[in-house]
Amino acid sequence: MKKEQTMKLKIIPIGGLGLIGMNMTAFEYNESIVIVDCGLAFPENDMLGIDMVIPDVTYLKENISKVKGMVFTHGHEDHIGALPYILKELNVPLYATKLTMGLIERKLTEHNLMRGTKRKVVKPGQSINLGEFRIEFIKTNHSIQDAVALAIYSPAGIVVHTGDFKVDYTPVFGDAIDLQRFAEIGKKGVLALMCDSTNAERPGFTASERTVGRTIDNLFAENREHRIIIATFASNVDRVQQIINTAYKYGRKVVVEGRSMVNVISTASELGYLNIPDNTLIDLDQMKNYPDDQMVLITTGSQGESMAALSRMAANVHKKVVIKPGDTVIFSSNPIPGNEKAVSKVINELSMKGANVIFQDVHVSGHACQEEIKLIYTLVHPKYALPVHGEYRHMKAQATLAENLGIPKDHIFIMKTGDVLEMDQDSAKVTGHVQTGAILVDGLGVGDVGNIVLRDRQHLAEDGIVIAVLTLEKYSNQILAGPDIVSRGFVYVREAEDLMEEAREIVEDAMQNCLSHRVTDWSKMKNAIRDSLGEFLWKRTKRRPMILPIIMEVE
Amino acid sequence: MKKEQTMKLKIIPIGGLGLIGMNMTAFEYNESIVIVDCGLAFPENDMLGIDMVIPDVTYLKENISKVKGMVFTHGHEDHIGALPYILKELNVPLYATKLTMGLIERKLTEHNLMRGTKRKVVKPGQSINLGEFRIEFIKTNHSIQDAVALAIYSPAGIVVHTGDFKVDYTPVFGDAIDLQRFAEIGKKGVLALMCDSTNAERPGFTASERTVGRTIDNLFAENREHRIIIATFASNVDRVQQIINTAYKYGRKVVVEGRSMVNVISTASELGYLNIPDNTLIDLDQMKNYPDDQMVLITTGSQGESMAALSRMAANVHKKVVIKPGDTVIFSSNPIPGNEKAVSKVINELSMKGANVIFQDVHVSGHACQEEIKLIYTLVHPKYALPVHGEYRHMKAQATLAENLGIPKDHIFIMKTGDVLEMDQDSAKVTGHVQTGAILVDGLGVGDVGNIVLRDRQHLAEDGIVIAVLTLEKYSNQILAGPDIVSRGFVYVREAEDLMEEAREIVEDAMQNCLSHRVTDWSKMKNAIRDSLGEFLWKRTKRRPMILPIIMEVE
Repeated sequence: MKKEQTMKLKIIPIGGLGLIGMNMTAFEYNESIVIVDCGLAFPENDMLGIDMVIPDVTYLKENISKVKGMVFTHGHEDHIGALPYILKELNVPLYATKLTMGLIERKLTEHNLMRGTKRKVVKPGQSINLGEFRIEFIKTNHSIQDAVALAIYSPAGIVVHTGDFKVDYTPVFGDAIDLQRFAEIGKKGVLALMCDSTNAERPGFTASERTVGRTIDNLFAENREHRIIIATFASNVDRVQQIINTAYKYGRKVVVEGRSMVNVISTASELGYLNIPDNTLIDLDQMKNYPDDQMVLITTGSQGESMAALSRMAANVHKKVVIKPGDTVIFSSNPIPGNEKAVSKVINELSMKGANVIFQDVHVSGHACQEEIKLIYTLVHPKYALPVHGEYRHMKAQATLAENLGIPKDHIFIMKTGDVLEMDQDSAKVTGHVQTGAILVDGLGVGDVGNIVLRDRQHLAEDGIVIAVLTLEKYSNQILAGPDIVSRGFVYVREAEDLMEEAREIVEDAMQNCLSHRVTDWSKMKNAIRDSLGEFLWKRTKRRPMILPIIMEVE
Repeated sequence: MKKEQTMKLKIIPIGGLGLIGMNMTAFEYNESIVIVDCGLAFPENDMLGIDMVIPDVTYLKENISKVKGMVFTHGHEDHIGALPYILKELNVPLYATKLTMGLIERKLTEHNLMRGTKRKVVKPGQSINLGEFRIEFIKTNHSIQDAVALAIYSPAGIVVHTGDFKVDYTPVFGDAIDLQRFAEIGKKGVLALMCDSTNAERPGFTASERTVGRTIDNLFAENREHRIIIATFASNVDRVQQIINTAYKYGRKVVVEGRSMVNVISTASELGYLNIPDNTLIDLDQMKNYPDDQMVLITTGSQGESMAALSRMAANVHKKVVIKPGDTVIFSSNPIPGNEKAVSKVINELSMKGANVIFQDVHVSGHACQEEIKLIYTLVHPKYALPVHGEYRHMKAQATLAENLGIPKDHIFIMKTGDVLEMDQDSAKVTGHVQTGAILVDGLGVGDVGNIVLRDRQHLAEDGIVIAVLTLEKYSNQILAGPDIVSRGFVYVREAEDLMEEAREIVEDAMQNCLSHRVTDWSKMKNAIRDSLGEFLWKRTKRRPMILPIIMEVE
């Protein structure tokens, strides 16, 4: 008995918390570890050329024997996207609801990982046993179907993890969030609540997805004579369903454009999450057979992503769709922070082509606002509050809400990635820190681009590169060829021939100076070139291109 | 008489309209040209390494003999910032209100241009004659003092140009916008209205600057025990005035931090636009002598600019100010589109240091919303509407407002930069196009960075550069040294030694292949290297670094 009483539950954020997305949390009790989610993050602005970011799972690899499985709250990229990469290092069984698993399996198939990966579909309301843990899946609402919260039962107590959620009393498909179950578990006594903070700065209640359906219906009614193009998040199956329903009601055919939109719709239809009336969906190539007022085009690109279908239409580089005056283009989305300018660019381009662009109030968030967060806190009534999801400012905002609801300040933890929070009924404390971090993925390279490479890319991006190359005679160190000056991204060379010639002379002088001082060490020669050329270019241009001396040697 | 009747007024946007900022418009009638504003634009995201963008004034240089002067609507950078560069090519007399001229003169002094530049301060209500034009300055309100609209009288008719404006019935300093004068001129008959579109998508009325004063007062009352740090736009002198007034009321000393804030405050105080009570302003170094609850720090950095004072405090790299728990940090600003992420980063960093960060509703816009725009249209009652300022979407939104107010669609022109709109009482039509464009300024270079350099920087930023260098023997073309492979920003080389060695072999093979096929043309050799190395690296890494072959020659 004694031993068991002193055993604590450890909660360790492996990803996320700081870098948005990349959600991954480890729950550890004695010899059992359960992982919740395995998300990727999209690169920050200063991560030049990076495709995505995944969490460093060193701690989990070192404790692989304890890891009983990975549980998913829903199928968004920031919760499942790192899986193909992580699974190669951490092959553990996966547990998810049906649609989430469908989206996971699409990824595994792409990466040839289906064979050898244990998977189990779990229904909301069901529980699974993983080592010393029991995990209960609780129905929630979110901007993708089949989202769940998790009740994580450990001998040290129950943790409720909401995942990303909102409260939708009138969802488009399926049930409302299972508030009764949250209440029941709350009644049992909950050790800690890990609650979505994304909208914790926003007062009030997030509107029901169904309200968007009414807005879309109105827009269809007002634009009966026009072709309608509507952009939204591929993964928002309910949104797509409502658009399809409205199209059907108004006698329009539907074309789906954009790879991720086509993918999600096919997975969702196969699994029964999307109900498309017969003869409604047509191919893009058939579009020309229908008049404009009988067409709806559902497309990707609601975030202004430069390669997405809508952006290509706006920029006039889409192969099959040409925007024309009279088109009604609807953004059924809000720009995610950081995408405002890109979205605005697309709106401008569409407007310039004569389209009527509608981009306000055709969207609701998938995340709980303050009143919903307070509702969950009140139902679950946790001893400790651990805000999750969102930026620090959002977690801080939730912490303030929790405090206002009577949770003592020292029972609220805004954790950092890698923190080890040990807790039981008597106490909770960050007792350690494990190795975590962000692994950059660039093309096929996972982790081969680090800070040095990024710093170089930043430097190259700012002022370009100037290369000074020369060939020396071995032993004598006489210059046999060069110095030649080659630049890229620095200055338009035809306009700067004099500057380049002077730069060449500067390098030549620097080398002669080395020779006359009997400097034969290449690294010293290179430094001399770098210093004198750098100073010269700064003085003349007030720019600091990367300077790269290259010395070759001939016998 | 006949001749005069057929003469038309030409309106030519030289800058702006498309690229935000860079406001500059030419008005031409017969042998007279008047220029309104001379702004810079801040670089777009894809203009890597660029410091600012200024308009191409080729057309004005070619017609310099006609140019009678340059008139300014207000002292923001997007209206005066290009002046030091343009003035070197286009030395014409400058006309502006007192504060605007003060800010212009600060720039001219910095660039050593005071001598040789004719300048005249004009009061709102006054007119000046410039060739065949008469220009009347009309008092408006904006987020900087001394903003004016212009009534441009030409023999072809009157054009009213609002500049950036809002309607503030209760301004902090000086008078409300001179609506009566707008009405009077409207009564005379106005040919065209060029009206600020920035907020044309927003319904309602922009609140008075004075409302921010009340909010700030409340915040001071609620935070009596804390140090207050407040970030706002340096040029918003009224805002700064209200902060100083509130500080004085609550018995606090004021420190001003950030170069542009210090500059603007000194100019505004000298010219009597800012009234600072004695013993209120103290030096940053004196701050340590006062308790926290007696301090207010007014700082730059409200847009999350990485080098600004507040950002440096948040990142813990400010030399003299350390953020501590209990500090109240107020953003008296909203993020300008594109800056949302940078602002959020600063908010997160400040929150992590324990500061209480307030960033909502401590700001009002300086631009007219829909009701104000409709008011101006109704007072001025123009024949033609030429929406200006803002992105295309905003001008489009104003065009819709104008249409709703009864202006016929074919009397509304959303112009493009360089368009020549010819108009008189009988007609208005775009009849031509003059050379305009964006000149990029990078360090000391004005216009020496063009599309090729930017494309190279983008390429370098994405995937870095791989250089293949080798020395050939003249005539024989035998390889004497190399090939060597050098890369920057591509991959962390220590992790990729094998890849680099293989790359070297690929280049060697390509060269041997050239030699055995008797290819001796360097450009062909370089192409062979570029192709084979590019293909190899793509296959192995799915990246496309810039590949730069360099061949040297030794006799």
